Amino acid sequence: MPKYSLGFDFGTESVRVLVVDIQDGRIAGQSSHNYAHGVIDRELPTSKQQLPPDYALQHPQDWLDSLSSACRDAMRQARVDPNDVVGIGVDFTSCTMLPAKADGTPLCLLDEFKTIPLAWPKLWKHHGAKAETQRINDVARERNESWLARYGGTIGLEWFFPKIFETLNHAPQVYQAADVFLEAGDWLVWQITRGPFPRCSTRELTRSTCQAGYKGQWNAKTGYPSREYFAAVDPRLADVVAQKMTGEHRSPGRKSGGLSSASASLLGLRPGTPVSAAIIDAHSGVPGAGVASPSTMVMVLGTSSCHMMNSRVEQLAAGISGVVEDGILPGYFGYETGQASVGDAFAWLVKTFGLSHETLNREAAKLPPGSNGVLAIDWFNGCRTPLMDADLSGAFVGLTLGTKPEQLYRALIEATAFGVRWIVDTMRDAGIPVRRFVASGGLPAKSPLLMQIYADVLNEKIQLAESDQSVALGAAILGCIAAGPEVTGYAEISQAIRAMARPREDLVYRPEIANRAKYEKLYELYRSISGCDGTLAGAMRELRQFHQATC
Amino acid sequence: MPKYSLGFDFGTESVRVLVVDIQDGRIAGQSSHNYAHGVIDRELPTSKQQLPPDYALQHPQDWLDSLSSACRDAMRQARVDPNDVVGIGVDFTSCTMLPAKADGTPLCLLDEFKTIPLAWPKLWKHHGAKAETQRINDVARERNESWLARYGGTIGLEWFFPKIFETLNHAPQVYQAADVFLEAGDWLVWQITRGPFPRCSTRELTRSTCQAGYKGQWNAKTGYPSREYFAAVDPRLADVVAQKMTGEHRSPGRKSGGLSSASASLLGLRPGTPVSAAIIDAHSGVPGAGVASPSTMVMVLGTSSCHMMNSRVEQLAAGISGVVEDGILPGYFGYETGQASVGDAFAWLVKTFGLSHETLNREAAKLPPGSNGVLAIDWFNGCRTPLMDADLSGAFVGLTLGTKPEQLYRALIEATAFGVRWIVDTMRDAGIPVRRFVASGGLPAKSPLLMQIYADVLNEKIQLAESDQSVALGAAILGCIAAGPEVTGYAEISQAIRAMARPREDLVYRPEIANRAKYEKLYELYRSISGCDGTLAGAMRELRQFHQATC
Repeated sequence: MPKYSLGFDFGTESVRVLVVDIQDGRIAGQSSHNYAHGVIDRELPTSKQQLPPDYALQHPQDWLDSLSSACRDAMRQARVDPNDVVGIGVDFTSCTMLPAKADGTPLCLLDEFKTIPLAWPKLWKHHGAKAETQRINDVARERNESWLARYGGTIGLEWFFPKIFETLNHAPQVYQAADVFLEAGDWLVWQITRGPFPRCSTRELTRSTCQAGYKGQWNAKTGYPSREYFAAVDPRLADVVAQKMTGEHRSPGRKSGGLSSASASLLGLRPGTPVSAAIIDAHSGVPGAGVASPSTMVMVLGTSSCHMMNSRVEQLAAGISGVVEDGILPGYFGYETGQASVGDAFAWLVKTFGLSHETLNREAAKLPPGSNGVLAIDWFNGCRTPLMDADLSGAFVGLTLGTKPEQLYRALIEATAFGVRWIVDTMRDAGIPVRRFVASGGLPAKSPLLMQIYADVLNEKIQLAESDQSVALGAAILGCIAAGPEVTGYAEISQAIRAMARPREDLVYRPEIANRAKYEKLYELYRSISGCDGTLAGAMRELRQFHQATC
Repeated sequence: MPKYSLGFDFGTESVRVLVVDIQDGRIAGQSSHNYAHGVIDRELPTSKQQLPPDYALQHPQDWLDSLSSACRDAMRQARVDPNDVVGIGVDFTSCTMLPAKADGTPLCLLDEFKTIPLAWPKLWKHHGAKAETQRINDVARERNESWLARYGGTIGLEWFFPKIFETLNHAPQVYQAADVFLEAGDWLVWQITRGPFPRCSTRELTRSTCQAGYKGQWNAKTGYPSREYFAAVDPRLADVVAQKMTGEHRSPGRKSGGLSSASASLLGLRPGTPVSAAIIDAHSGVPGAGVASPSTMVMVLGTSSCHMMNSRVEQLAAGISGVVEDGILPGYFGYETGQASVGDAFAWLVKTFGLSHETLNREAAKLPPGSNGVLAIDWFNGCRTPLMDADLSGAFVGLTLGTKPEQLYRALIEATAFGVRWIVDTMRDAGIPVRRFVASGGLPAKSPLLMQIYADVLNEKIQLAESDQSVALGAAILGCIAAGPEVTGYAEISQAIRAMARPREDLVYRPEIANRAKYEKLYELYRSISGCDGTLAGAMRELRQFHQATC
């Protein structure tokens, strides 16, 4: 009798539910359902008041409603008996967070707070906490906080405590009234295992080591930053951890609880079905790509790119967005690095030139490495790893009166490849081995040219993840693991991952030996103009010489 | 009884003839006539053989034929009696040069040489002499030649001796057979005063101090580079000056001779009509813009830009393309500086984006200084003054996912303004006063936005030249001067210039005080990323801060 696990994959606009056979990872059913309110970035649904341009909120009821629809639909498609569902995994965008009461009720659903924007869940891309992020970083650097090095030296604008601090500064009554601030992934797990609200209790709240570690400066050994640190940031924040951060931390794959009866009937599932602790959506792509072993980098390539890896080694290096023990899979140090702009930079070019991806891809593929003399810097949305600087911007260098759009397009692809290479070099230079590469996300299947350039620039073989839904599949795998070996038959986590997902053996990009020296030179140029000791003019001269020598 | 002078303006595609009233500069008639063969850059008209991509040749008979048509047509329109024409001035593209026999016959018109491409006149933009230019510069630097400093330290690819040396290397039989190598402007003056060929004689050949000074490393005090220098470049070149450079040097405005009978009947003019020594087309724009006094910079703004100025001061500075005594007007040191890509960079953007100048201009005019965070480097065709480096290229910095084409367009205009500012700073820093600015050429009338930005960035008032044909008008003024004071009534050259041309008093762009500090900061950024001690990343950060502070 086949058994199944479910992946609940909460994205920015919708939730997707996957019903997966735990024996081989076959997807037996799937469905997605958009959130009724989508991203709330123009006006508040209640008061219709205009929101500032850097605001991005969500409606918590949407998550439950859309989940119910998608789950029932996926189960119906799969024709699976709820009794054959052994476990559930949940991935969620992060840091998407909200203030709630001790019974699980989001503050924004209470009459008293429903017209206050900062009482609503802040989506990951809510950018209202600029001043607070600055202060949080300044004080951490002044005090030389030891945890800062785990985040490459910089706390991000989109993270957890900047969003709390913003609430304290701009809506102190919300801060006061909140019994707890929590990640949306943790809130969702809490709701389906203990609720839904108002049936929950903070005594039974679990939090994911993934979300807490990558976005909340939490660490298994030392916990959150100290009372003294928070007091130095702002005296009113001194007790934030004691007062607002209740909850026990569990790593993804560990069981947070079983489905509550009320939630089971909401979802059409069996009460008591084990639910794994949540995971950040991108990080779920690691098990979802079938990567169980350390030192294999999973590159999730999309509008932006996120590169994750488990390692036995703990080393801190500049610009790594986070190093978290048990952050992705238990037993390993999980590394997260990223590029802030990849597919969306290509989309900018397509839109700005009024051309199509197809045309540009086709013409770009005819060009040699180096795009006939054009070099791009890919920081159209700032640089994440390794410089951690949102103020950096994109650039094109090497333009002449004969430069064509396809040169700019290929140069942008090459620039993002140099960006990955820089990340890998940074990790290796720090002593973190990076041995294998698996690509997932939307771009690999769309652009063989991009994959070949990445393989050439890295001078490494790159396998493609099998599923085009590796994030949701990863959640389902974590659900299977949470069910435990006696139910699933998998003694080791790695067995479950290898059985349910695997990189494709038949679709592997290998580096072209002929291009190796060319891309080495171009990468040097990219580093010299994007680094801190290069000059633009010098790079231009070398670039031109390079172009002339290779055309 | 009104008197007239004629301007013969030889451009790249056509010759224009202006009939001008010497009392007030009124244009009584004008006509232009395209060269039958235009620019010969694909195949030789005789043998149909393909030309290399960097070749650009012309047909010398075209110059005479088109001149005859245009001159007769302009005189017919003006209804002027040839006896009332007091003088003729000739401006020509430069360095456009050719090998000829002692009787004036171009080698390419002889059966023996007509199928050899390098026997044909090389147009200014013929770029076949790359290796030769390198050698000419290397040897000059090794030998620390004193004349090198007059050219900002670099001899250009398009200049006279590189083109001779190319001929020697690739068509030695042409070099051998040539009795003389000369500028097309000097050849034309020779033809109409002594010929046409084969009636000429090198004994009666005059050469312009302008062409010789700016393009032939010639100097009134020291002549051409020494025999020792040329021998060091290549032993076969040792006697090039003695053997191939016959001719007496005359400054523009001095009479080279009177129209020969044969040429007078070809042109429908009076034999004996005085003809001025030739001048380079761009330089002719100085008198043509009505600028008679020193320290006034004449900016000729077109596809590329050329900035010329007369000065009482002789100072050498990096990247000034030439400092030539009597080079533009007698009695002054003539300075030439330039920007290799201006209007053609705008045209590149228009073509690449498939938009119109009108749309981009309109939208760009709505943007603040700094183009909302985008900075361009305008070296789409290399940098002339001050870096003298054809290998430099264009760049855009500060790009984001929201960058629009009009930002790039305005950034390019601003970049060319920063380029002018850098030239002016370079001259002033060297101790050469620059006090007033007059703009001419095709761009000023087309783009008020550009003119306002130039005034703002220079923080100087800019007058527009009255005539949109200041180059041809300048030639006519030189023709008037060559006729002498007893005929024209002008005791001083400056009187003739002021009477026949003047900058417009009613169209003056004045700097906006509100923009001064902004453009100072942007200019600093432009210098820091385009100079040799800046870093791109640092500039990006500052640029972003600037943008945020001003938007």
